[in-house]
Amino acid sequence: MEKKITVLPGDGIGPEVVASAVRVLQAIGKRYNHKFHLSYAVIGGTAIDEFNNPLPDETIAICKESDAILLGAVGGPKWDNNPPELRPEKGLLKIRKTFDLFANLRPVKAFPSLLGASPLKREVAENVDLMIVRELTGGIYFGEKHRTDNEASDLNIYTRKEIERIVDNAFEMARLRKGRLCSVDKANVLETSRLWRQVVEEKKEQYPDVKVEHNLVDSVAMKLITNPEHFDVVVTDNMFGDILSDEASVITGSLGVLPSASIRGDHFGLYEPIHGSAPDIAGQGKANPAATILSVAMMLRYSFGLKEEATEIERAVSAVFNDGYFTADLAKDGSRSLSTNEWTDRVIIEI
Amino acid sequence: MEKKITVLPGDGIGPEVVASAVRVLQAIGKRYNHKFHLSYAVIGGTAIDEFNNPLPDETIAICKESDAILLGAVGGPKWDNNPPELRPEKGLLKIRKTFDLFANLRPVKAFPSLLGASPLKREVAENVDLMIVRELTGGIYFGEKHRTDNEASDLNIYTRKEIERIVDNAFEMARLRKGRLCSVDKANVLETSRLWRQVVEEKKEQYPDVKVEHNLVDSVAMKLITNPEHFDVVVTDNMFGDILSDEASVITGSLGVLPSASIRGDHFGLYEPIHGSAPDIAGQGKANPAATILSVAMMLRYSFGLKEEATEIERAVSAVFNDGYFTADLAKDGSRSLSTNEWTDRVIIEI
Ligand SMILES: CC(C)[C@H](C(=O)O)[C@@H](O)C(=O)O
Ligand SMILES: CC(C)[C@H](C(=O)O)[C@@H](O)C(=O)O
Repeated sequence: MEKKITVLPGDGIGPEVVASAVRVLQAIGKRYNHKFHLSYAVIGGTAIDEFNNPLPDETIAICKESDAILLGAVGGPKWDNNPPELRPEKGLLKIRKTFDLFANLRPVKAFPSLLGASPLKREVAENVDLMIVRELTGGIYFGEKHRTDNEASDLNIYTRKEIERIVDNAFEMARLRKGRLCSVDKANVLETSRLWRQVVEEKKEQYPDVKVEHNLVDSVAMKLITNPEHFDVVVTDNMFGDILSDEASVITGSLGVLPSASIRGDHFGLYEPIHGSAPDIAGQGKANPAATILSVAMMLRYSFGLKEEATEIERAVSAVFNDGYFTADLAKDGSRSLSTNEWTDRVIIEI
Repeated sequence: MEKKITVLPGDGIGPEVVASAVRVLQAIGKRYNHKFHLSYAVIGGTAIDEFNNPLPDETIAICKESDAILLGAVGGPKWDNNPPELRPEKGLLKIRKTFDLFANLRPVKAFPSLLGASPLKREVAENVDLMIVRELTGGIYFGEKHRTDNEASDLNIYTRKEIERIVDNAFEMARLRKGRLCSVDKANVLETSRLWRQVVEEKKEQYPDVKVEHNLVDSVAMKLITNPEHFDVVVTDNMFGDILSDEASVITGSLGVLPSASIRGDHFGLYEPIHGSAPDIAGQGKANPAATILSVAMMLRYSFGLKEEATEIERAVSAVFNDGYFTADLAKDGSRSLSTNEWTDRVIIEI
């Protein structure tokens, strides 16, 4: 197989973790006989510095030519006081919207060797294996905004079509997993949630093999912590998804190793670690590349249909953790930690 | 002191826990020589059954004559399929709006004897003592709504005045506590959040003794679990507050014993446990009245300025837990549990 990938290293530790993930990608290519052609482009703070634009047209053009995008991370204190339009995260919001990447997939699965770092009791977190499917291009993020000196507003708005496609996506995901779908809304208060709930009710006829429940966002915010094992696939809107997916990411103690995918209907997608750009440790070889490496696995699975290759990366990462190799963020008291590159070498040896 | 209190028992276990709390209130009145005059009225499902209205005018009139309101809980499966206007929780939303109860106070404090029930590790949860101040009468809850067959929308809208009063409230709360305020918003996406952040920045000049930080809602959703001790007072809008206060309620394992207050500028307020109406155990003497009893303590403190009396109730509840007395929901394996009334007796003996 031959695929074109746009690589957007971004800011802070972005370039380091992306370099690691690219090495793993090439190792997989070699082993399974695939060719991955890489093109590099800028986004976020780096793009603001160079083009005064967090997502320059050049970057969009390069992405359009490719089959998938690999992103590091964006942001840093240098750009924190910029006006809204010149903030690194604007690049993120714009790339999602430009490429219609409406489905954000955020898996959370416990690595037994990392559970010690979880704030939750081992017995609460150890069997967690859930996937949050967040609507990513609609809702209050992109609705009309108003602002005067004395008032501000944001419109939360969803069309039936926007809801249908993300709900379909989540049902299909549930089907591939444990067959359970929890749809999250605030139907006792919001009109958008009532439409959301109605669409899920209509759609479920088409997926009789999936067990569906509706749950309120406040209640899910509790249950994700008291009983996270309860969940298989969770589907929700953009704003609730932002909050709940970050909340869920802390369950297993593996916050720094969680990947994500932002996809649309045709397999094109953007893959990135959920962690930030960690400017404080940038350039020191301390960053944990696991989340970005696992994002490459998601790319292989969802954009290229290469399931075996994806599973192989996941297995290798797991094995390296089980063998007791960690970067500084996860190293236990007293144990030696590996640098970003050393840890990546371990994964490549495994493959 | 003489005070008039409207008692709204509500649905499910509401009447039982309210009866317990009223007994504790009267015991405090006796010991400290206060007279509390009670008037009872209906709200929620019970009010729908009787008046076809979750908040009848009669109830509003009685509340208007009083100095504070004590509420049990509303809701139950019986009314779950009612149209939106005839749902029990509409009574809650309407009473908040009618009486302009714009500040919802939700304290979360660890009881050492309950930590075993927490999903979090003991060392993460044991020193937690935070207070969420949620804006309760504005934002997306009450903004304009639209709905067609193919589209739905909810307007999130805040005036500067609405933000100023809740922010003032939170600053004053921080001053009475540990002097730290975390303001939560989504300023990288929402206009309302940018106005919110600006108001907090302006206000902080007036409270130089309070240490202020701004934090994004997704980041707070994580930190509440990874490092809940970090927080003292947390102030946020209606929707974020709904999610974060419920999330925070599970930290200490004492979900069933958490009180709340919904107040306005002049000390009038509504006090209620944060738990629901638990229809499955209603009428069986199994309900835990602690949250409602602690809500009475909040009433004494915030509406009547009776600090000593409030502290005495809190001390008594704590002592009863420390002595190993629990209702069924909290009883440890093998230990005998007390009924709602027996447990209340223990608290009254302590006072
Ligand atoms: C940076 C921010 C705009 C973004 C979001 O809210 O979507 C981030 O929190 C995320 O979840 O990817
Ligand atoms: C019942 C519901 C409308 C209410 C809310 O969302 O405010 C509840 O969740 C609460 O927090 O008191």
